[in-house]
Amino acid sequence: MAKSEKISEAVVRRLPIYLRYLSYLQQVGVATVSSQQMGKNLDVNPAQIRKDLSSFGDFGKKGIGYDVNYLVEKIRQILKLNEEIRVALIGAGHLGHAISNYNAHVEDYMRIAAIFDNDPAKCGKVLAGITIQPLEELVETVQRQKIRLAIITVPASAAQSVANLLLEAGIEGILNFAPTTIRADRDVRIHYADVTSSLQSLAYYLT
Amino acid sequence: MAKSEKISEAVVRRLPIYLRYLSYLQQVGVATVSSQQMGKNLDVNPAQIRKDLSSFGDFGKKGIGYDVNYLVEKIRQILKLNEEIRVALIGAGHLGHAISNYNAHVEDYMRIAAIFDNDPAKCGKVLAGITIQPLEELVETVQRQKIRLAIITVPASAAQSVANLLLEAGIEGILNFAPTTIRADRDVRIHYADVTSSLQSLAYYLT
Repeated sequence: MAKSEKISEAVVRRLPIYLRYLSYLQQVGVATVSSQQMGKNLDVNPAQIRKDLSSFGDFGKKGIGYDVNYLVEKIRQILKLNEEIRVALIGAGHLGHAISNYNAHVEDYMRIAAIFDNDPAKCGKVLAGITIQPLEELVETVQRQKIRLAIITVPASAAQSVANLLLEAGIEGILNFAPTTIRADRDVRIHYADVTSSLQSLAYYLT
Repeated sequence: MAKSEKISEAVVRRLPIYLRYLSYLQQVGVATVSSQQMGKNLDVNPAQIRKDLSSFGDFGKKGIGYDVNYLVEKIRQILKLNEEIRVALIGAGHLGHAISNYNAHVEDYMRIAAIFDNDPAKCGKVLAGITIQPLEELVETVQRQKIRLAIITVPASAAQSVANLLLEAGIEGILNFAPTTIRADRDVRIHYADVTSSLQSLAYYLT
């Protein structure tokens, strides 16, 4: 069984949320935390947190809680955040701007290493410290810089052709903000992050 | 068992992706579709699609496939997309701009009905047809306009105070793009859509 099948996607989506909170606790010097405290701060059921974390091993001590440092290290290992992962951003419009401006806050093991746009007026300009390149340079740059993940923030009509370039370049995962589906002719992980899909999922939980 | 516990979050996240593709098929006049075709176009395992859809009922016919019109209707029902759902956007920066510009493309049953920002220079300006209001008007406006969902696109440092206002106003679901966790003192559905968490989830699937 492949690793990706063992742990449900919902758990994988919650882990970064746990990690952010635990990193915060680490910064302020908290050594242990209970699932109750975590649940209260993250608006997640404590039983859910215990269940999620137990899928990776026996991290908690009954009556004491979780060791914060140990749990941070473990989650980082699980999410493979102990090695640098380079990311490409395609689309330097409003959304691309907003995302690249967060770049400084992304931990140093994961960072936007290249930005592409098809608008000649944008190419050559600097965004968050990175010079915007034309799409023609995408395949070569992604391969040379060993970029593994990509964020698509182009309009829906351009998303598939951008995805095709990324697939050609050997990208392993795509975070797609364009409101359209992407077709892939080989194995690649695609996550949909567009607002419409996200709102529709949220609507399911309305009572 | 509450409805939200019956169907896994991963399935709820895939349904909008299915819906988008099926709506496209509907537009171009395709009457039936197999899970194989869907899988190929959506980069999802066909067995996964069959499993996801079977949690809601027996939609497909062996050897024929799914009736597109029927399936669109069913998924819309499941996601509660047959009634209008109003959405508030808080934060009129780059990200807020990008999201509100997509507003025209959001189907008419779900639309951004109000936009708020704490910057006096932005208040009163029109974004995607909507006049930006100050945060002081949030609670009253959300209640009067019966807004049920909110999108947070403010900086991390302002996200909690904005969330507190939304909770006070009675909002039912929050899509949080700010790279920070939000604490809620009552039952509300919070989905994290920030780029860092999303990239970290994606990193898990790297081989």
